Amino acid sequence: LKPTIVRNISRADAGVIEQLGALGVATVHEAQGRSGLLRPYMRPIYPTARLAGSAITISCQAGDNLMIHAAIEICRPGDVLVVTTTSESTDGMFGELLAVSARAHGVVGLLIDAGVRDVADLTTMAFPVWAKAIHAQGTVKATAGSVNVPVVCAGAAIAPGDVVIADVDGVVVVPKAKAADVAKAGADRLAKEEKSRARLKSGELGLDFYGLRAKLAELGVQYIDEGQN
Amino acid sequence: LKPTIVRNISRADAGVIEQLGALGVATVHEAQGRSGLLRPYMRPIYPTARLAGSAITISCQAGDNLMIHAAIEICRPGDVLVVTTTSESTDGMFGELLAVSARAHGVVGLLIDAGVRDVADLTTMAFPVWAKAIHAQGTVKATAGSVNVPVVCAGAAIAPGDVVIADVDGVVVVPKAKAADVAKAGADRLAKEEKSRARLKSGELGLDFYGLRAKLAELGVQYIDEGQN
Amino acid sequence: LKPTIVRNISRADAGVIEQLGALGVATVHEAQGRSGLLRPYMRPIYPTARLAGSAITISCQAGDNLMIHAAIEICRPGDVLVVTTTSESTDGMFGELLAVSARAHGVVGLLIDAGVRDVADLTTMAFPVWAKAIHAQGTVKATAGSVNVPVVCAGAAIAPGDVVIADVDGVVVVPKAKAADVAKAGADRLAKEEKSRARLKSGELGLDFYGLRAKLAELGVQYIDEGQN
Amino acid sequence: LKPTIVRNISRADAGVIEQLGALGVATVHEAQGRSGLLRPYMRPIYPTARLAGSAITISCQAGDNLMIHAAIEICRPGDVLVVTTTSESTDGMFGELLAVSARAHGVVGLLIDAGVRDVADLTTMAFPVWAKAIHAQGTVKATAGSVNVPVVCAGAAIAPGDVVIADVDGVVVVPKAKAADVAKAGADRLAKEEKSRARLKSGELGLDFYGLRAKLAELGVQYIDEGQN
Amino acid sequence: LKPTIVRNISRADAGVIEQLGALGVATVHEAQGRSGLLRPYMRPIYPTARLAGSAITISCQAGDNLMIHAAIEICRPGDVLVVTTTSESTDGMFGELLAVSARAHGVVGLLIDAGVRDVADLTTMAFPVWAKAIHAQGTVKATAGSVNVPVVCAGAAIAPGDVVIADVDGVVVVPKAKAADVAKAGADRLAKEEKSRARLKSGELGLDFYGLRAKLAELGVQYIDEGQN
Amino acid sequence: LKPTIVRNISRADAGVIEQLGALGVATVHEAQGRSGLLRPYMRPIYPTARLAGSAITISCQAGDNLMIHAAIEICRPGDVLVVTTTSESTDGMFGELLAVSARAHGVVGLLIDAGVRDVADLTTMAFPVWAKAIHAQGTVKATAGSVNVPVVCAGAAIAPGDVVIADVDGVVVVPKAKAADVAKAGADRLAKEEKSRARLKSGELGLDFYGLRAKLAELGVQYIDEGQN
Repeated sequence: LKPTIVRNISRADAGVIEQLGALGVATVHEAQGRSGLLRPYMRPIYPTARLAGSAITISCQAGDNLMIHAAIEICRPGDVLVVTTTSESTDGMFGELLAVSARAHGVVGLLIDAGVRDVADLTTMAFPVWAKAIHAQGTVKATAGSVNVPVVCAGAAIAPGDVVIADVDGVVVVPKAKAADVAKAGADRLAKEEKSRARLKSGELGLDFYGLRAKLAELGVQYIDEGQN
Repeated sequence: LKPTIVRNISRADAGVIEQLGALGVATVHEAQGRSGLLRPYMRPIYPTARLAGSAITISCQAGDNLMIHAAIEICRPGDVLVVTTTSESTDGMFGELLAVSARAHGVVGLLIDAGVRDVADLTTMAFPVWAKAIHAQGTVKATAGSVNVPVVCAGAAIAPGDVVIADVDGVVVVPKAKAADVAKAGADRLAKEEKSRARLKSGELGLDFYGLRAKLAELGVQYIDEGQN
Repeated sequence: LKPTIVRNISRADAGVIEQLGALGVATVHEAQGRSGLLRPYMRPIYPTARLAGSAITISCQAGDNLMIHAAIEICRPGDVLVVTTTSESTDGMFGELLAVSARAHGVVGLLIDAGVRDVADLTTMAFPVWAKAIHAQGTVKATAGSVNVPVVCAGAAIAPGDVVIADVDGVVVVPKAKAADVAKAGADRLAKEEKSRARLKSGELGLDFYGLRAKLAELGVQYIDEGQN
Repeated sequence: LKPTIVRNISRADAGVIEQLGALGVATVHEAQGRSGLLRPYMRPIYPTARLAGSAITISCQAGDNLMIHAAIEICRPGDVLVVTTTSESTDGMFGELLAVSARAHGVVGLLIDAGVRDVADLTTMAFPVWAKAIHAQGTVKATAGSVNVPVVCAGAAIAPGDVVIADVDGVVVVPKAKAADVAKAGADRLAKEEKSRARLKSGELGLDFYGLRAKLAELGVQYIDEGQN
Repeated sequence: LKPTIVRNISRADAGVIEQLGALGVATVHEAQGRSGLLRPYMRPIYPTARLAGSAITISCQAGDNLMIHAAIEICRPGDVLVVTTTSESTDGMFGELLAVSARAHGVVGLLIDAGVRDVADLTTMAFPVWAKAIHAQGTVKATAGSVNVPVVCAGAAIAPGDVVIADVDGVVVVPKAKAADVAKAGADRLAKEEKSRARLKSGELGLDFYGLRAKLAELGVQYIDEGQN
Repeated sequence: LKPTIVRNISRADAGVIEQLGALGVATVHEAQGRSGLLRPYMRPIYPTARLAGSAITISCQAGDNLMIHAAIEICRPGDVLVVTTTSESTDGMFGELLAVSARAHGVVGLLIDAGVRDVADLTTMAFPVWAKAIHAQGTVKATAGSVNVPVVCAGAAIAPGDVVIADVDGVVVVPKAKAADVAKAGADRLAKEEKSRARLKSGELGLDFYGLRAKLAELGVQYIDEGQN
């Protein structure tokens, strides 16, 4: 129960992280059995933002960014700051100066279940952020928290070192131990979708393609004409 | 009460639909007596999205897109998918593959009182979507629903074949039977606004222009100077 | 308690207003002791919108824009319309025609704790607006209200003539009487941040830079290694 | 499109309305194929409130209760006021004086997709109300609306004369023409539930009772012991 | 801008405060020209709660109740704690121990634009509270704030010493200087309503009573029969 | 990733669970370092509801209660059903019949991050439920899920067998392994509060009692008189 900073954590393989990032959020989410999504209120600050990396988890008092400063020291290239607060907040706990500092230590982006500010500067820097709110509200540095402990961020459980992938569709987390399997399943899914796309584009119906006509009949769906009843 | 798909529906005149689309949402809404708007949470996935077409209404179980597949079969060029769920949901019930399939059958866009995913791909395709949420959450195909029955979508009653118009200001529905009258009223309104614009631009006040000074007096509004009271 | 229009109000110095606008919302908010922000739901209609000016405050009945017309008459170049409603509303009380009229009288932008419409036209005009909603819903002109009385807008108290500054980070208000002091404090803060940026960019940690290591120790934060507990 | 008051409407059979009220909201909703519910934000002002009656539909400008006064004149004993606004509002459009007036004309309760006030008095009077908000905010009488036209109330389409049933579980609407059939289906459902209750109370599992074990197997659900994987 | 505690403030006359409390929230709100209400999310923790007193305003950091402790020292019998936070929060900043302490210094209740806890104990004590949330989340005592400065609480501007009245309909604030006038206007209003009640109870219509038939005609509202159009 | 039911799980000591229940939510939350609370939207269906027990975790498709039926089979006396959905939902997934069945298998209550119905019956049965919504919306039994896997419920991570405590202040979870320590720390806290209560009741100030005067001075808080500045 004591506030704690875990200095060194294990991470997933860098190549696997890259593959997951290339698959994108929707495909990764499906590939791991429709799980791991954060709530849809987590939105990117600019629409082309994309990110994949290892989670450095940070639990802060609402309105207090002390532990973000503490976390940057233990980041390595490819890490992503994953910030949560012990109660709900929209304060702008992260801005351009912290982004400059984080980038100097290899951090590739931020997921924050709270607010962010200096959005124009962060966009110019191409520093990708997914946040609950854009809010200029400043914060204090007065209360203890923890770094690299398991957290719940925007409705999803995230452990330190888990892989986080984010794009315009939202954010998904993949447990470190399953990262390679999910990357493989995602690649298979993409290949399959490529074939589906061609058939659907040619006008073949999903009803036939996915064999759904029998399902409709089994569920008792009736076909009628307008005016008939 | 049985789940039902109505295959063939009547639609408004294509020329009238085009006129309504050219007028835009705000003008059409005013032209039909300030009615027909969907709730403002329906937002386009890209700011230049515009659409006008005939509603193919779809009522789905939350988190289940089976009936969207069923609906595509009965779409004709110029139709718009209007998706509702029997209880509130933000799931991403529609993505790029469905858009490819829908477009192959002439569908010009989607209104969904739930979520959408593959937003980057849909934007690249220029497939316009208005949705409550962007969310990668995938769906099942397990429960019956209906196609081309009257629905309530984002607070507005929509019947199959009604005209739906959408742009960055939101979404409005025009009952099929009133479409021609509304298009005419909207054109008149635009012509009138053109004259107003010129006078307001020259500095003439709305107070004088719309005759509001008498209204202010009638309502007992007083004019004072700062400090006076 | 009588509805009132205050015709002539005092304003802050134009040079000071310009300085505050150049500082931006986050810096001004910090410079006046982390106060004066409006709620984060006030969002610009296009991301590059920026604004600084003198508040013309307007209190309207929800769904009624009569008093906006009355306010335009008493605006001077550099003024900003600050619209509130006596109960919560998302109606589109302001659109392109009002913007044309307001601009003809020198108004530089709009803050509205309600809705706005004709967003495509307003963006083309580069008329900056911060609003709670984009909504085509039209309004009536039937009920009295007041102009240039103290209001609460999106959670912040604003008096007529106060300086309002807005950008992509949100909106902040500076009381007229404190404007010069806040501008000075903001400039000092920017200068200080410039130095911090250089040191953080070089990899120096905020922990060291802001002297936070002692704080962590005082708060009982412990450092451990993964697996240890 | 002209504002309209429809004086005389047909209603469902009084005996059927009474039966539907006795069944309660959850049973009626199931009996008509899981449809007709209003959004769950519609809450009773006291927990024992119950109601069943014929809908007198009222469409008002937000913050304006003129049309509620107009509606009372055409109410008959057993009617329920169903109030909607043309845009979202939480204003207290209805209070104790209106309840006194409505009751004098036979009205048995109120459904309002907006606010209500004088809640202590209404509770003492045992005048049942389901509302979106409790709010003292007063209203004006300045803008036209309609009475006994089709409306959307809290997400459900309601026509004049439809049967509305409400209790602590919420509110459901039954189309006038289907009222007798739904009452019959509901009674059958209750009888069936009575038998189910006895068996479930004795410890028989729903898994066996509803034949769900096969479903679990078909869906690939596996049983394991803790620690196993 | 320095955090400040204003020790001694002036208050309204105790007799006037009592009269305002007896009038209730809805009547007071109307009597001062439909102004002064807090947002409807401020709800009492038990339905019979009622309160009228002088505001001791408190501005806290979110999640930090240090300043509530500081405020109790300067309270006098009849005072009400009015707690706001510098950014939105639902933390339970106030519980039973603070209520015991506050009551020992004459405090008659609490308005808090945040959370409250120990609700069962507070109810047993009959200590009335209006809050945004019930939440057990505990707080720290680490950051400065102010006592008896002007605040915005749940959307309303409140100055120290203003009269706050609360009941099941919500909360209203009356500026200290207007308290006597508002109490007088409220009493007049009640007397008038008493007469209206009798006439409405006898079946006289508000349409006739308030002279609204002419208004309906002026607004172009038409009367028709069902089926006619 | 396969849907899974874990039949047998370990639970905390029954005596410890009872102690935690007696302490109540606020005290338990503080005793474990201000952690473990669920979001404040989880509200009891009647104000005197109280509960403490072992979590049987259930992950369902939104709008589908198949897995609740599956879970009841593996419950033991003293267990609490903890229901989550894979995407947000307010559907009434649990009602009186399920409560009868659950109680027959020893279940003492329900926490559901979705909706509940038959609230009048559940209250009569004194079956305690904390839910996000009261909603009559019925559900299907069509999609697989899991029982006794780790879940996130209303923002808190809950593992099977963890102790859940709920009362009018909300819901808190205590990890099984820490239950005894937290119960001990909570008892110590209560004893300490008993002493504080007596001193505060006598009028001693928290400022003195908790030694906060020095803190105020250190933070630069100034005391002034009204009018002074």
